[in-house]
Amino acid sequence: MRRHAAASGHTGSIRDQVIAFKREQIILAAVDLFFTNGYQQTTLDEVAGRLNVTKPFIYYHFKDKEALLSEISQRAVREANEALKTAIEAPGTPTERLHWAVKTLMKAVIEQQRYTAVFFREQKNLSEEVRGPVYAQHREYDKLLVTLLNEGIAKGEFTIADPHVCALGLSGMTGWAYNWYRPDGRLPADTISALMAEMALRTVGVDPKKIKAVVAASAAR
Amino acid sequence: MRRHAAASGHTGSIRDQVIAFKREQIILAAVDLFFTNGYQQTTLDEVAGRLNVTKPFIYYHFKDKEALLSEISQRAVREANEALKTAIEAPGTPTERLHWAVKTLMKAVIEQQRYTAVFFREQKNLSEEVRGPVYAQHREYDKLLVTLLNEGIAKGEFTIADPHVCALGLSGMTGWAYNWYRPDGRLPADTISALMAEMALRTVGVDPKKIKAVVAASAAR
Repeated sequence: MRRHAAASGHTGSIRDQVIAFKREQIILAAVDLFFTNGYQQTTLDEVAGRLNVTKPFIYYHFKDKEALLSEISQRAVREANEALKTAIEAPGTPTERLHWAVKTLMKAVIEQQRYTAVFFREQKNLSEEVRGPVYAQHREYDKLLVTLLNEGIAKGEFTIADPHVCALGLSGMTGWAYNWYRPDGRLPADTISALMAEMALRTVGVDPKKIKAVVAASAAR
Repeated sequence: MRRHAAASGHTGSIRDQVIAFKREQIILAAVDLFFTNGYQQTTLDEVAGRLNVTKPFIYYHFKDKEALLSEISQRAVREANEALKTAIEAPGTPTERLHWAVKTLMKAVIEQQRYTAVFFREQKNLSEEVRGPVYAQHREYDKLLVTLLNEGIAKGEFTIADPHVCALGLSGMTGWAYNWYRPDGRLPADTISALMAEMALRTVGVDPKKIKAVVAASAAR
Protein backbone atom coordinates (compact mmCIF):
# COMPACT_ATOMS: atom_id res chain seq x y z
CA MET A 1 0.00 0.00 0.00
CA ARG A 2 2.89 2.31 0.83
CA ARG A 3 4.20 2.09 -2.69
CA HIS A 4 0.83 2.89 -4.23
CA ALA A 5 0.35 5.85 -1.94
CA ALA A 6 3.72 7.23 -3.03
CA ALA A 7 3.11 6.52 -6.70
CA SER A 8 -0.26 8.24 -6.69
CA GLY A 9 1.25 11.40 -5.26
CA HIS A 10 -0.22 11.13 -1.75
CA THR A 11 2.29 12.25 0.80
CA GLY A 12 1.86 9.99 3.85
CA SER A 13 4.17 10.33 6.83
CA ILE A 14 7.80 11.40 6.49
CA ARG A 15 8.81 7.84 7.36
CA ASP A 16 6.66 6.47 4.52
CA GLN A 17 8.12 8.98 2.12
CA VAL A 18 11.66 8.02 3.07
CA ILE A 19 10.86 4.33 2.58
CA ALA A 20 9.30 5.06 -0.83
CA PHE A 21 12.37 7.12 -1.77
CA LYS A 22 14.76 4.33 -0.78
CA ARG A 23 12.73 1.72 -2.68
CA GLU A 24 12.80 3.97 -5.73
CA GLN A 25 16.60 4.33 -5.59
CA ILE A 26 16.98 0.56 -5.41
CA ILE A 27 14.66 0.05 -8.39
CA LEU A 28 16.51 2.69 -10.43
CA ALA A 29 19.87 1.04 -9.77
CA ALA A 30 18.45 -2.43 -10.50
CA VAL A 31 16.71 -1.50 -13.76
CA ASP A 32 19.88 0.17 -14.97
CA LEU A 33 22.06 -2.86 -14.21
CA PHE A 34 19.51 -5.40 -15.55
CA PHE A 35 19.14 -3.35 -18.74
CA THR A 36 22.86 -2.96 -19.35
CA ASN A 37 24.25 -6.30 -18.18
CA GLY A 38 21.23 -8.63 -18.03
CA TYR A 39 19.30 -9.97 -15.05
CA GLN A 40 21.26 -13.20 -14.57
CA GLN A 41 24.57 -11.38 -14.84
CA THR A 42 23.62 -8.87 -12.12
CA THR A 43 24.08 -9.63 -8.42
CA LEU A 44 22.37 -7.87 -5.52
CA ASP A 45 25.90 -6.97 -4.37
CA GLU A 46 26.28 -4.90 -7.52
CA VAL A 47 22.92 -3.21 -6.94
CA ALA A 48 24.05 -2.39 -3.38
CA GLY A 49 27.44 -1.23 -4.66
CA ARG A 50 25.79 1.17 -7.11
CA LEU A 51 24.00 2.82 -4.17
CA ASN A 52 26.88 2.61 -1.72
CA VAL A 53 24.75 0.59 0.68
CA THR A 54 24.98 -2.92 2.12
CA LYS A 55 23.03 -5.94 0.90
CA PRO A 56 20.85 -6.06 4.06
CA PHE A 57 19.64 -2.57 3.09
CA ILE A 58 18.28 -4.05 -0.15
CA TYR A 59 16.77 -7.04 1.69
CA TYR A 60 14.94 -4.71 4.04
CA HIS A 61 12.98 -3.38 1.04
CA PHE A 62 12.88 -6.36 -1.34
CA LYS A 63 12.64 -10.08 -0.56
CA ASP A 64 15.10 -11.05 -3.29
CA LYS A 65 16.32 -10.23 -6.80
CA GLU A 66 13.16 -11.61 -8.37
CA ALA A 67 11.04 -9.17 -6.31
CA LEU A 68 12.96 -6.38 -8.04
CA LEU A 69 12.40 -7.88 -11.49
CA SER A 70 8.74 -8.32 -10.63
CA GLU A 71 8.31 -4.66 -9.62
CA ILE A 72 10.13 -3.51 -12.79
CA SER A 73 7.98 -5.74 -15.04
CA GLN A 74 4.70 -4.61 -13.51
CA ARG A 75 5.70 -0.98 -13.83
CA ALA A 76 6.54 -1.34 -17.55
CA VAL A 77 3.04 -2.42 -18.53
CA ARG A 78 1.19 -0.35 -15.91
CA GLU A 79 2.43 2.98 -17.28
CA ALA A 80 1.50 2.07 -20.87
CA ASN A 81 -1.97 0.87 -19.81
CA GLU A 82 -2.62 4.06 -17.89
CA ALA A 83 -1.60 6.24 -20.85
CA LEU A 84 -3.93 4.25 -23.10
CA LYS A 85 -6.86 4.30 -20.66
CA THR A 86 -6.62 8.07 -20.28
CA ALA A 87 -6.64 8.51 -24.06
CA ILE A 88 -9.65 6.24 -24.53
CA GLU A 89 -11.66 8.07 -21.90
CA ALA A 90 -10.66 11.51 -23.22
CA PRO A 91 -13.12 13.66 -25.18
CA GLY A 92 -12.76 14.06 -28.96
CA THR A 93 -13.15 11.97 -32.11
CA PRO A 94 -11.57 8.48 -32.34
CA THR A 95 -9.01 9.98 -34.75
CA GLU A 96 -7.98 12.67 -32.26
CA ARG A 97 -7.89 10.19 -29.41
CA LEU A 98 -5.82 7.60 -31.31
CA HIS A 99 -3.39 10.33 -32.30
CA TRP A 100 -3.05 11.46 -28.72
CA ALA A 101 -2.90 7.88 -27.41
CA VAL A 102 -0.04 6.89 -29.71
CA LYS A 103 1.85 10.10 -28.96
CA THR A 104 1.46 9.52 -25.21
CA LEU A 105 2.29 5.83 -25.50
CA MET A 106 5.45 6.53 -27.49
CA LYS A 107 6.61 8.96 -24.84
CA ALA A 108 5.85 6.39 -22.13
CA VAL A 109 7.73 3.66 -24.02
CA ILE A 110 10.73 5.96 -24.44
CA GLU A 111 10.69 7.12 -20.82
CA GLN A 112 10.14 3.58 -19.54
CA GLN A 113 12.52 2.02 -22.07
CA ARG A 114 14.64 0.20 -19.52
CA TYR A 115 11.63 -1.20 -17.64
CA THR A 116 9.97 -2.44 -20.84
CA ALA A 117 13.19 -3.92 -22.23
CA VAL A 118 13.96 -5.70 -18.96
CA PHE A 119 10.44 -7.16 -18.77
CA PHE A 120 10.39 -8.49 -22.34
CA ARG A 121 13.92 -9.85 -22.18
CA GLU A 122 13.76 -11.37 -18.71
CA GLN A 123 10.18 -12.68 -18.60
CA LYS A 124 11.46 -16.28 -18.40
CA ASN A 125 13.10 -15.42 -15.08
CA LEU A 126 9.77 -14.55 -13.48
CA SER A 127 7.74 -17.18 -11.68
CA GLU A 128 4.33 -18.08 -13.15
CA GLU A 129 2.59 -16.19 -10.30
CA VAL A 130 4.31 -12.95 -11.25
CA ARG A 131 4.39 -13.48 -15.00
CA GLY A 132 0.67 -14.31 -15.24
CA PRO A 133 -0.66 -10.95 -13.98
CA VAL A 134 1.84 -9.00 -16.13
CA TYR A 135 0.78 -10.92 -19.24
CA ALA A 136 -2.85 -10.25 -18.29
CA GLN A 137 -2.09 -6.52 -18.04
CA HIS A 138 -0.50 -6.72 -21.46
CA ARG A 139 -3.55 -8.38 -22.99
CA GLU A 140 -5.65 -5.66 -21.34
CA TYR A 141 -3.56 -3.12 -23.24
CA ASP A 142 -4.33 -4.77 -26.58
CA LYS A 143 -8.04 -4.92 -25.66
CA LEU A 144 -8.10 -1.18 -24.89
CA LEU A 145 -6.58 -0.49 -28.28
CA VAL A 146 -9.16 -2.72 -30.02
CA THR A 147 -11.96 -0.80 -28.26
CA LEU A 148 -10.67 2.50 -29.63
CA LEU A 149 -10.22 1.03 -33.12
CA ASN A 150 -13.77 -0.35 -33.13
CA GLU A 151 -15.12 3.06 -32.14
CA GLY A 152 -13.29 4.63 -35.08
CA ILE A 153 -14.67 2.00 -37.46
CA ALA A 154 -18.22 2.53 -36.14
CA LYS A 155 -17.91 6.28 -36.71
CA GLY A 156 -16.61 5.74 -40.25
CA GLU A 157 -13.23 7.33 -39.47
CA PHE A 158 -11.06 4.19 -39.66
CA THR A 159 -10.75 1.55 -42.39
CA ILE A 160 -9.42 -1.61 -40.77
CA ALA A 161 -9.69 -5.17 -42.09
CA ASP A 162 -9.12 -6.84 -38.69
CA PRO A 163 -9.06 -4.68 -35.52
CA HIS A 164 -7.21 -7.32 -33.47
CA VAL A 165 -4.36 -7.73 -35.93
CA CYS A 166 -4.31 -3.95 -36.38
CA ALA A 167 -3.99 -3.43 -32.61
CA LEU A 168 -1.09 -5.89 -32.48
CA GLY A 169 0.53 -4.10 -35.41
CA LEU A 170 0.17 -0.68 -33.78
CA SER A 171 1.36 -2.08 -30.51
CA GLY A 172 4.52 -3.42 -32.19
CA MET A 173 5.03 -0.23 -34.19
CA THR A 174 5.15 1.88 -31.04
CA GLY A 175 6.37 -0.59 -28.41
CA TRP A 176 9.37 -1.77 -30.43
CA ALA A 177 11.01 1.58 -29.69
CA TYR A 178 12.14 0.01 -26.41
CA ASN A 179 14.64 -1.85 -28.56
CA TRP A 180 15.84 0.86 -30.96
CA TYR A 181 15.47 4.15 -29.11
CA ARG A 182 18.77 5.82 -28.17
CA PRO A 183 18.77 8.90 -25.92
CA ASP A 184 21.63 10.31 -28.06
CA GLY A 185 19.88 9.50 -31.36
CA ARG A 186 19.10 11.79 -34.32
CA LEU A 187 15.63 12.91 -33.20
CA PRO A 188 14.25 14.04 -29.82
CA ALA A 189 11.58 11.87 -28.16
CA ASP A 190 8.84 14.41 -28.91
CA THR A 191 9.53 14.38 -32.64
CA ILE A 192 9.62 10.57 -32.77
CA SER A 193 6.32 10.42 -30.85
CA ALA A 194 4.64 12.89 -33.21
CA LEU A 195 5.89 11.00 -36.30
CA MET A 196 4.62 7.67 -34.96
CA ALA A 197 1.23 9.16 -34.04
CA GLU A 198 0.84 10.46 -37.61
CA MET A 199 1.89 7.07 -39.01
CA ALA A 200 -0.65 5.31 -36.81
CA LEU A 201 -3.45 7.42 -38.28
CA ARG A 202 -2.36 6.39 -41.78
CA THR A 203 -2.20 2.76 -40.69
CA VAL A 204 -5.86 2.78 -39.61
CA GLY A 205 -6.85 4.44 -42.89
CA VAL A 206 -7.81 7.94 -41.73
CA ASP A 207 -8.41 10.39 -44.61
CA PRO A 208 -5.11 12.28 -45.36
CA LYS A 209 -6.84 15.69 -45.09
CA LYS A 210 -8.15 14.78 -41.65
CA ILE A 211 -4.68 13.59 -40.62
CA LYS A 212 -3.20 16.94 -41.63
CA ALA A 213 -5.82 18.82 -39.60
CA VAL A 214 -5.37 16.66 -36.47
CA VAL A 215 -1.56 16.83 -36.66
CA ALA A 216 -1.62 20.62 -37.11
CA ALA A 217 -4.07 21.08 -34.22
CA SER A 218 -1.95 18.84 -31.98
CA ALA A 219 1.30 20.66 -32.86
CA ALA A 220 -0.35 24.04 -32.15
CA ARG A 221 -1.42 22.94 -28.67
CA MET B 1 31.47 -23.88 -44.61
CA ARG B 2 29.76 -27.24 -44.17
CA ARG B 3 26.73 -25.56 -42.69
CA HIS B 4 26.45 -23.04 -45.51
CA ALA B 5 26.70 -25.74 -48.14
CA ALA B 6 23.81 -27.56 -46.49
CA ALA B 7 21.76 -24.42 -46.09
CA SER B 8 22.16 -23.41 -49.72
CA GLY B 9 20.87 -26.79 -50.89
CA HIS B 10 24.21 -28.17 -52.15
CA THR B 11 24.47 -31.83 -51.35
CA GLY B 12 28.14 -32.48 -50.50
CA SER B 13 29.28 -35.92 -49.32
CA ILE B 14 27.01 -38.19 -47.31
CA ARG B 15 29.27 -37.57 -44.32
CA ASP B 16 28.77 -33.80 -44.64
CA GLN B 17 25.04 -34.23 -44.96
CA VAL B 18 24.91 -36.37 -41.83
CA ILE B 19 26.93 -33.78 -39.90
CA ALA B 20 24.62 -31.00 -41.11
CA PHE B 21 21.60 -33.08 -40.12
CA LYS B 22 22.97 -33.69 -36.62
CA ARG B 23 23.83 -30.01 -36.14
CA GLU B 24 20.29 -29.12 -37.20
CA GLN B 25 18.73 -31.52 -34.68
CA ILE B 26 20.83 -30.01 -31.89
CA ILE B 27 19.83 -26.47 -32.89
CA LEU B 28 16.15 -27.41 -33.05
CA ALA B 29 16.25 -28.93 -29.55
CA ALA B 30 18.21 -25.94 -28.18
CA VAL B 31 15.98 -23.24 -29.67
CA ASP B 32 12.93 -25.03 -28.33
CA LEU B 33 14.34 -25.25 -24.79
CA PHE B 34 15.77 -21.70 -24.80
CA PHE B 35 12.41 -20.36 -26.06
CA THR B 36 10.30 -22.24 -23.51
CA ASN B 37 12.49 -22.15 -20.41
CA GLY B 38 15.06 -19.41 -21.10
CA TYR B 39 18.77 -19.68 -21.96
CA GLN B 40 20.16 -19.50 -18.43
CA GLN B 41 17.66 -22.06 -17.18
CA THR B 42 18.62 -24.58 -19.89
CA THR B 43 21.58 -26.93 -19.49
CA LEU B 44 23.38 -28.79 -22.27
CA ASP B 45 22.35 -31.96 -20.43
CA GLU B 46 18.74 -31.08 -21.14
CA VAL B 47 19.51 -30.44 -24.82
CA ALA B 48 21.22 -33.83 -24.98
CA GLY B 49 18.32 -35.45 -23.11
CA ARG B 50 15.83 -34.06 -25.61
CA LEU B 51 17.75 -35.85 -28.38
CA ASN B 52 18.56 -39.01 -26.43
CA VAL B 53 22.27 -38.40 -26.95
CA THR B 54 25.22 -37.79 -24.63
CA LYS B 55 26.76 -34.38 -23.88
CA PRO B 56 29.99 -35.24 -25.79
CA PHE B 57 27.79 -35.64 -28.89
CA ILE B 58 26.79 -31.99 -28.51
CA TYR B 59 30.38 -30.89 -27.84
CA TYR B 60 31.51 -32.58 -31.05
CA HIS B 61 29.31 -30.14 -33.00
CA PHE B 62 29.28 -27.01 -30.79
CA LYS B 63 32.02 -25.58 -28.56
CA ASP B 64 29.61 -24.66 -25.78
CA LYS B 65 26.11 -23.41 -24.98
CA GLU B 66 26.97 -19.91 -26.19
CA ALA B 67 27.93 -21.29 -29.63
CA LEU B 68 24.36 -22.59 -29.88
CA LEU B 69 22.89 -19.23 -28.86
CA SER B 70 25.18 -17.55 -31.36
CA GLU B 71 24.03 -19.78 -34.25
CA ILE B 72 20.36 -19.24 -33.29
CA SER B 73 20.79 -15.45 -33.10
CA GLN B 74 22.54 -15.22 -36.46
CA ARG B 75 19.90 -17.33 -38.11
CA ALA B 76 17.05 -15.15 -36.80
CA VAL B 77 18.30 -12.01 -38.54
CA ARG B 78 19.76 -13.77 -41.60
CA GLU B 79 16.43 -15.16 -42.75
CA ALA B 80 14.66 -11.81 -42.38
CA ASN B 81 17.45 -9.99 -44.26
CA GLU B 82 17.32 -12.48 -47.11
CA ALA B 83 13.55 -12.13 -47.46
CA LEU B 84 13.91 -8.36 -47.56
CA LYS B 85 16.81 -8.37 -50.05
CA THR B 86 14.88 -10.62 -52.44
CA ALA B 87 11.88 -8.31 -52.30
CA ILE B 88 13.96 -5.20 -52.94
CA GLU B 89 15.65 -6.74 -55.95
CA ALA B 90 12.37 -8.10 -57.38
CA PRO B 91 10.69 -6.45 -60.37
CA GLY B 92 7.55 -4.33 -59.91
CA THR B 93 6.56 -0.99 -58.39
CA PRO B 94 7.72 0.00 -54.89
CA THR B 95 4.12 -0.56 -53.72
CA GLU B 96 4.04 -4.11 -55.07
CA ARG B 97 7.49 -4.85 -53.67
CA LEU B 98 6.75 -3.45 -50.21
CA HIS B 99 3.55 -5.48 -50.13
CA TRP B 100 5.41 -8.63 -51.06
CA ALA B 101 8.32 -7.82 -48.73
CA VAL B 102 6.08 -7.40 -45.68
CA LYS B 103 4.10 -10.53 -46.52
CA THR B 104 7.32 -12.54 -46.87
CA LEU B 105 8.86 -11.00 -43.78
CA MET B 106 5.80 -11.76 -41.66
CA LYS B 107 5.93 -15.38 -42.75
CA ALA B 108 9.64 -15.49 -41.93
CA VAL B 109 9.06 -13.93 -38.50
CA ILE B 110 6.31 -16.45 -37.77
CA GLU B 111 8.34 -19.42 -39.01
CA GLN B 112 11.47 -18.22 -37.19
CA GLN B 113 9.54 -17.09 -34.10
CA ARG B 114 11.62 -19.08 -31.64
CA TYR B 115 14.93 -17.96 -33.14
CA THR B 116 13.93 -14.30 -33.14
CA ALA B 117 12.48 -14.44 -29.62
CA VAL B 118 15.57 -16.16 -28.25
CA PHE B 119 17.90 -13.62 -29.88
CA PHE B 120 16.04 -10.55 -28.61
CA ARG B 121 15.54 -11.95 -25.14
CA GLU B 122 18.98 -13.44 -24.64
CA GLN B 123 21.19 -10.87 -26.40
CA LYS B 124 22.86 -9.96 -23.09
CA ASN B 125 24.17 -13.52 -22.86
CA LEU B 126 26.16 -13.15 -26.09
CA SER B 127 29.74 -11.92 -26.04
CA GLU B 128 30.50 -8.62 -27.79
CA GLU B 129 32.19 -10.48 -30.66
CA VAL B 130 29.01 -12.38 -31.45
CA ARG B 131 26.52 -9.66 -30.58
CA GLY B 132 28.25 -7.03 -32.73
CA PRO B 133 27.81 -8.78 -36.10
CA VAL B 134 24.18 -9.70 -35.31
CA TYR B 135 23.39 -6.08 -34.43
CA ALA B 136 25.12 -5.03 -37.67
CA GLN B 137 22.92 -7.44 -39.63
CA HIS B 138 19.91 -5.96 -37.90
CA ARG B 139 20.90 -2.42 -38.85
CA GLU B 140 21.40 -3.68 -42.42
CA TYR B 141 17.78 -4.82 -42.35
CA ASP B 142 16.54 -1.35 -41.40
CA LYS B 143 18.75 0.17 -44.14
CA LEU B 144 17.25 -2.14 -46.77
CA LEU B 145 13.78 -1.06 -45.73
CA VAL B 146 14.75 2.64 -45.91
CA THR B 147 16.06 2.08 -49.47
CA LEU B 148 12.71 0.64 -50.55
CA LEU B 149 10.79 3.45 -48.83
CA ASN B 150 12.93 6.12 -50.51
CA GLU B 151 12.25 4.52 -53.90
CA GLY B 152 8.51 4.69 -53.24
CA ILE B 153 8.77 8.35 -52.21
CA ALA B 154 10.82 9.18 -55.35
CA LYS B 155 8.17 7.55 -57.55
CA GLY B 156 5.38 9.45 -55.80
CA GLU B 157 3.75 6.26 -54.48
CA PHE B 158 4.54 6.72 -50.77
CA THR B 159 3.88 9.66 -48.45
CA ILE B 160 6.32 9.41 -45.55
CA ALA B 161 7.43 12.19 -43.22
CA ASP B 162 10.65 10.44 -42.10
CA PRO B 163 11.77 7.22 -43.87
CA HIS B 164 14.02 6.12 -40.98
CA VAL B 165 11.33 6.38 -38.32
CA CYS B 166 8.87 4.79 -40.76
CA ALA B 167 11.23 1.83 -41.33
CA LEU B 168 11.58 1.34 -37.57
CA GLY B 169 7.79 1.52 -37.22
CA LEU B 170 7.21 -1.07 -39.96
CA SER B 171 9.95 -3.22 -38.56
CA GLY B 172 8.24 -3.21 -35.14
CA MET B 173 4.80 -3.72 -36.64
CA THR B 174 5.88 -6.94 -38.36
CA GLY B 175 8.70 -8.16 -36.13
CA TRP B 176 6.73 -7.89 -32.89
CA ALA B 177 4.78 -10.96 -34.01
CA TYR B 178 7.61 -13.01 -32.52
CA ASN B 179 6.11 -12.05 -29.19
CA TRP B 180 2.36 -12.45 -29.82
CA TYR B 181 2.04 -15.10 -32.52
CA ARG B 182 0.53 -18.38 -31.33
CA PRO B 183 0.46 -21.43 -33.65
CA ASP B 184 -2.98 -22.28 -32.25
CA GLY B 185 -4.30 -18.70 -32.56
CA ARG B 186 -7.44 -17.40 -34.30
CA LEU B 187 -5.91 -16.76 -37.75
CA PRO B 188 -3.52 -18.80 -39.93
CA ALA B 189 -0.06 -17.35 -40.65
CA ASP B 190 -0.96 -16.58 -44.28
CA THR B 191 -3.95 -14.45 -43.28
CA ILE B 192 -1.95 -12.54 -40.67
CA SER B 193 0.82 -11.91 -43.21
CA ALA B 194 -1.66 -10.62 -45.82
CA LEU B 195 -3.34 -8.32 -43.27
CA MET B 196 0.00 -6.87 -42.14
CA ALA B 197 1.14 -6.32 -45.73
CA GLU B 198 -2.05 -4.36 -46.48
CA MET B 199 -1.61 -2.34 -43.26
CA ALA B 200 1.99 -1.53 -44.21
CA LEU B 201 0.81 -0.01 -47.51
CA ARG B 202 -1.61 2.21 -45.59
CA THR B 203 1.16 3.17 -43.17
CA VAL B 204 3.35 4.50 -46.01
CA GLY B 205 0.39 6.42 -47.45
CA VAL B 206 -0.34 4.46 -50.64
CA ASP B 207 -3.57 5.53 -52.36
CA PRO B 208 -6.45 3.26 -51.12
CA LYS B 209 -7.49 2.35 -54.70
CA LYS B 210 -3.95 1.22 -55.47
CA ILE B 211 -3.88 -0.82 -52.24
CA LYS B 212 -7.06 -2.61 -53.29
CA ALA B 213 -5.59 -3.44 -56.71
CA VAL B 214 -2.26 -4.71 -55.31
CA VAL B 215 -3.97 -6.78 -52.59
CA ALA B 216 -6.40 -8.32 -55.13
CA ALA B 217 -3.60 -9.12 -57.58
CA SER B 218 -1.52 -10.69 -54.80
CA ALA B 219 -4.43 -12.82 -53.54
CA ALA B 220 -5.17 -14.05 -57.09
CA ARG B 221 -1.57 -15.25 -57.56
